[in-house]
Amino acid sequence: MPAPIEFFFDFASPYAYFAAHRIDAIAAKHGREVEWRPFMLGAAFKATGMMPLTEQPLRGDYARRDWDRLARRMNLPFVLPERFPIVTLAAARAFYWLADRDRPLANAFALRMFQAYFGAGRDVTAPEAVAAEGATLGIPATELVAATADPVWKAKLKEATDEALRRGAFGSPFTFVDGEPFWGNDRLDMVDDWLSAGGW
Amino acid sequence: MPAPIEFFFDFASPYAYFAAHRIDAIAAKHGREVEWRPFMLGAAFKATGMMPLTEQPLRGDYARRDWDRLARRMNLPFVLPERFPIVTLAAARAFYWLADRDRPLANAFALRMFQAYFGAGRDVTAPEAVAAEGATLGIPATELVAATADPVWKAKLKEATDEALRRGAFGSPFTFVDGEPFWGNDRLDMVDDWLSAGGW
Repeated sequence: MPAPIEFFFDFASPYAYFAAHRIDAIAAKHGREVEWRPFMLGAAFKATGMMPLTEQPLRGDYARRDWDRLARRMNLPFVLPERFPIVTLAAARAFYWLADRDRPLANAFALRMFQAYFGAGRDVTAPEAVAAEGATLGIPATELVAATADPVWKAKLKEATDEALRRGAFGSPFTFVDGEPFWGNDRLDMVDDWLSAGGW
Repeated sequence: MPAPIEFFFDFASPYAYFAAHRIDAIAAKHGREVEWRPFMLGAAFKATGMMPLTEQPLRGDYARRDWDRLARRMNLPFVLPERFPIVTLAAARAFYWLADRDRPLANAFALRMFQAYFGAGRDVTAPEAVAAEGATLGIPATELVAATADPVWKAKLKEATDEALRRGAFGSPFTFVDGEPFWGNDRLDMVDDWLSAGGW
């Protein structure tokens, strides 16, 4: 069984929202699994001196237009939430808690979080807001809220963030195929080609 | 006859080097011409507060790896020149001088400049170095050097740069299809799709 594709992302990343709807299918084409790995993009921004796209002159206007264009092309709903970006600590910690007991459910939860924030524009900063989304998948809200404050899952998220930075993940999404790094949603076609060719 | 595709680029942009080898073929597929429009990327960097990729932490290492990977994939030579980036005023002014008299020759010259700098690693900052490349295409060196100091072509380049910024071109390459902006070499497939679909 080949190694899983590592999909690093932040739940507040619009490009990760689009990529999250494609990565599993691309991997499956090549008999690969995807290991979803939320991390804190803010830590990468500190390391690179970057700011959220919407706060960057010229780039922000382009990004807004590009997100709407990608949504139309992929037939996905997309709204730029009133509060953007947000700190996604609660969602990411809840994800690692879930992944430890039920990885498929954790992946479904991740997609649900993206759909809540960028599909419906709901603020999912608070643990209770994350729990409300999880409840639609049958995830017990009280346990989920508790997990977002549990040192075990706090540490797990910090490890993932430190590892992402150590491996050069400066943006979201950031995909590794057998160690080869691919930055961005618009490199998923190259990920597909790379998997077909076995690299080049 | 539909409007030409506008291809804004800086001669010192590695991603523009790769895109320059594809843009004409993509346009031709759709019965379009390409208007090559060199501009000064440094002016855009001033507007956005960006730095050359090679000077950015994490992003620089990724870019170097990505350029080598793109070169292998496209079967193109690529070297990161010892002096990088360079100010490409002379090449850009010479281009506009040539384009005014012979656009096909100007486009061939543009490709030649890219191949000299990124294919062979030759420093093409100086007007004489630009003229040496032009000479291989039969372009008179003395006239070319004179054009790089001619207020007419200085003004033409400044206009192109001002227009690029006014229209939101914060990077290189930056392609406009009927006013729709596409940033980067890795959006050329989307440019192709956009032309096929007539937008979406």
